[in-house]
Amino acid sequence: MSTPVYRDQWNVQASDIARRTHNPIRSIVECLVVEPNPAKSMISLSIGDPTTFGNLKPPKEVIDAVQQSLVSQLYNGYAPSTGHQSAREAVAEYSSSEFVKVDAKDVILCSGCSCALDLCITALARRGQNILIPRPGFSIYRTLAEGLGINVKSYELRPELGWEIDLDNLESQIDEFTAAIIINNPSNPCGSVFSKDHTLDILDVAARYYIPIIADEIYEHMVFPGRTFHSLASLSKEVPILSCSGLTKRFLVPGWRMGWIIIHDRQNVLEKEDHSKTAYNCVKKISGLKPIMPDGAMYMMVYIDLPCFPEFNSDLEFVQRLLMEESVFCLPGQCFDYPSYMRLVITVPIDMLEEACQRIQEFCERHHYKTAEDTQRSNLIAAEIPY
Amino acid sequence: MSTPVYRDQWNVQASDIARRTHNPIRSIVECLVVEPNPAKSMISLSIGDPTTFGNLKPPKEVIDAVQQSLVSQLYNGYAPSTGHQSAREAVAEYSSSEFVKVDAKDVILCSGCSCALDLCITALARRGQNILIPRPGFSIYRTLAEGLGINVKSYELRPELGWEIDLDNLESQIDEFTAAIIINNPSNPCGSVFSKDHTLDILDVAARYYIPIIADEIYEHMVFPGRTFHSLASLSKEVPILSCSGLTKRFLVPGWRMGWIIIHDRQNVLEKEDHSKTAYNCVKKISGLKPIMPDGAMYMMVYIDLPCFPEFNSDLEFVQRLLMEESVFCLPGQCFDYPSYMRLVITVPIDMLEEACQRIQEFCERHHYKTAEDTQRSNLIAAEIPY
Repeated sequence: MSTPVYRDQWNVQASDIARRTHNPIRSIVECLVVEPNPAKSMISLSIGDPTTFGNLKPPKEVIDAVQQSLVSQLYNGYAPSTGHQSAREAVAEYSSSEFVKVDAKDVILCSGCSCALDLCITALARRGQNILIPRPGFSIYRTLAEGLGINVKSYELRPELGWEIDLDNLESQIDEFTAAIIINNPSNPCGSVFSKDHTLDILDVAARYYIPIIADEIYEHMVFPGRTFHSLASLSKEVPILSCSGLTKRFLVPGWRMGWIIIHDRQNVLEKEDHSKTAYNCVKKISGLKPIMPDGAMYMMVYIDLPCFPEFNSDLEFVQRLLMEESVFCLPGQCFDYPSYMRLVITVPIDMLEEACQRIQEFCERHHYKTAEDTQRSNLIAAEIPY
Repeated sequence: MSTPVYRDQWNVQASDIARRTHNPIRSIVECLVVEPNPAKSMISLSIGDPTTFGNLKPPKEVIDAVQQSLVSQLYNGYAPSTGHQSAREAVAEYSSSEFVKVDAKDVILCSGCSCALDLCITALARRGQNILIPRPGFSIYRTLAEGLGINVKSYELRPELGWEIDLDNLESQIDEFTAAIIINNPSNPCGSVFSKDHTLDILDVAARYYIPIIADEIYEHMVFPGRTFHSLASLSKEVPILSCSGLTKRFLVPGWRMGWIIIHDRQNVLEKEDHSKTAYNCVKKISGLKPIMPDGAMYMMVYIDLPCFPEFNSDLEFVQRLLMEESVFCLPGQCFDYPSYMRLVITVPIDMLEEACQRIQEFCERHHYKTAEDTQRSNLIAAEIPY
């Protein structure tokens, strides 16, 4: 058989999905060529992995349950694609309340909450349609949607109102091609928790426009005392809602990529509030920075008043130099489509968090246009003290 | 703000990807409304899960390694998206031989081999292009590609030559839109293992047309004595090859969805060959059936000479009645785009496999047009013997 000439050389091309799929956190973080200051131990406040420092451990029950499953050898085989029935029933029971009753048949187990979001977006929106996402917001929504050729439109959050959604702005983004609204509550990166009234207002918008909601509620049980989380599904009998969650954060096993194995556990919530207060109280005293107190999740957003730091043109430059000089690593707001901010992870051990805040303070004093001169002088003095 | 009317009622539609994604095994199997015969214990030879009966267990080293990782609490956090470096190095070492040297940077860990195939197809082919897949073949290639709007063209295997690829037919399917050829060796459902010469011939086709290969080699180490598996990558320095594998089948933990944790283990190969000989020798004596001896993997394809069974119009009807009367469940060839065949899983315990073959034989004798009358008589006699 003679070979028809469709190609005359190797020319393997990436697909359009591969080319369109883009992770802004990775592309920003992995392009950092900055070395931390070798004279200071590294403190990373960048990635939201509560297990990094070993200070937060999963409950013993979680480890024991997996160990028993492992030793039993009953779970080596294929599971149903939606998950084992007993696990789905457990999630249904866990997610039910006096306001909402969940049936096991409505539970689908996924490979982490990212996979849950992927399935929701893929199932609801098609190429040429759009989804609405929060700004600032977690980058995965954009990464998943744009890969599939789905357009992304951002709606604004209002830092002055504890990161509530700007509802007028949300409405103005809706058009005839809008397939879904993504609501992230409690929020990454903001740590905000919506009030019941605000949650109802969001549902009202969705209901009036007949737009389904994808609810990213992975931080649903990481809410500080005095605040109450209201799931979107608990407040509406009308709006179609796909709620995404998992055991990733609350049960402190993000690497397991497991949705919905449930253990009743309230640990870490109080501790995290102490952490957030510590970080907030320290950072708010720093000239040129303005923290926004979180109500939940694992994060605190901090506004960087860049004109106060004339050496830096962007939040990215700010965090790069912070890393280089102080070995403290925060994610720049750019990662969440929100320049002039940085995001601090507050679940590191408390002494490490205090140390980090202290170093951020010294860094800011050194580079603040008003204090830079004084600080340089005191740095010279400090350098003479052996340590 | 007044609400523009883009929609005046709830009308949430599935995306085109959701609508196009179709799993023929599930759609055939889940539509079976047949009840097995309650008088006979159920024997399922349908799904390729070697763990189902507990007769094949993972090596102790596998269980121990996971247990140690669990107890260490060092692996609760996020892993790099391509996998932990140490695991990638282990896979690289495992996959290297005197013929091919694999570098850890070229290893990407996935959530099972299905995920690996998904990534390969998604990365190499775009909507409107096509990929070539074997017939008979595992349905996932079609499921993944069609969901993405990638066309699928089947090339034929030749049962009379131990399921070698019909190379002329393969060539004739290639066109200017062909993005990749999927080669599955050893084969599901055929259990065939290609010779070195045949593998070289396949590579020659890919090289002449400059088409990259996606090599589904998940059964690479399930090869019966006397046959040798040659990975595609070991025989070509030229053709770009994405090789997919994992610990799923060989290490008997398909449900773990883990790629490339490697333990050196040769168990089960001999046992499976005994099983395949048992099944082959029994089935080849049955009038109207013709088994094709496998060389590897976990399966045996059996031709059903349907004209011999006038009650059944298709392989699906045949396996349905087999289930209903004998409580033996095999997958119909339709599931692999190959009518008039059925696929037997041969990794069940040997006594169960013998029992299943015995029942298949009785079933065929009862329904074979030549023997049906005699068999009915002997069944009456058998019914009088207590058991």
